[in-house]
Amino acid sequence: MQIGHLEARPRVGYFYVNKKPYQTIIDKIMKLRVRDFLSVPVVVSENTVIYDAIVALFVNDVGTLFVVSEGEILEGIVSRKDLLKTTLGKVDINQVPVSVIMTRMPNVITTTMEEGLWHAGRKICSHEVDALPVVKEITQDKIIKYKVVGRLSKTNITKAFVDFGLGKFGSEEENDY
Amino acid sequence: MQIGHLEARPRVGYFYVNKKPYQTIIDKIMKLRVRDFLSVPVVVSENTVIYDAIVALFVNDVGTLFVVSEGEILEGIVSRKDLLKTTLGKVDINQVPVSVIMTRMPNVITTTMEEGLWHAGRKICSHEVDALPVVKEITQDKIIKYKVVGRLSKTNITKAFVDFGLGKFGSEEENDY
Repeated sequence: MQIGHLEARPRVGYFYVNKKPYQTIIDKIMKLRVRDFLSVPVVVSENTVIYDAIVALFVNDVGTLFVVSEGEILEGIVSRKDLLKTTLGKVDINQVPVSVIMTRMPNVITTTMEEGLWHAGRKICSHEVDALPVVKEITQDKIIKYKVVGRLSKTNITKAFVDFGLGKFGSEEENDY
Repeated sequence: MQIGHLEARPRVGYFYVNKKPYQTIIDKIMKLRVRDFLSVPVVVSENTVIYDAIVALFVNDVGTLFVVSEGEILEGIVSRKDLLKTTLGKVDINQVPVSVIMTRMPNVITTTMEEGLWHAGRKICSHEVDALPVVKEITQDKIIKYKVVGRLSKTNITKAFVDFGLGKFGSEEENDY
């Protein structure tokens, strides 16, 4: 037997709510969407040399670069650690392109505009990455490809956490509790 | 008209609570303490050469190293970006020590075991850092110094956020809602 909740009915007056406060928090968190928390993506092409990629990282003040082909199609991802690792070896960062050191599709963990912020946060934690490319699936030459439309990082989630403490929970649309 | 909750008190019966659900979330967030979310700090000494610091970063799988003197006293902090920046110049990473590139005390943003997780998160966002050393104030030779006792990063806050969605809110002590 399915037992439901008693909820509010206009003109009926008080009603009993047996939700614990923490259930309210969980419900609130689960309603948050990636689209309301993402940042602008910073992209480079596959033939960008490592030196230029490092410069792009500093110029744009990000921790992760997305490697794309024409049409902003996701090909790979390069982290600060990927770039830093090259300093330990004999790699000529003025010659070697990022395509040599990047994590290549389909091994890149991604998210979408519509995905829950919580689910994206769980991906970041379980896959131990700093940021996820926010992608949109498109079909090109009958092949499914992923266009990069945003960036979601631990910074975005940390900011969301700080916003919660200020009473801000995502978009206005979601704030009508 | 604002309609609140009816809640139970032993032997008193129902009473009126006009707290909005999001106030409950804010209260809950503000009760969280750094001590329940921190990680083990990874430290190096001032004379560690940059190459060895980069190795320490990979071996310990962290993004930030704390530079300490004897007794784990905080002297500075080195991020992945500080280390990465050396690759753009003519720095000999096998010769130059981290003391040359680190952010030095008293310019390091710190937190304590007792500080609120929210306040620490706000520091991380406003100062645009990845991690804070968790310190304990001690007096040595009549001078106030800061002993490193932990590390709090965006990863810890992202994990806390994921835990919220699973109904876990800090220590058991704080979970008796």
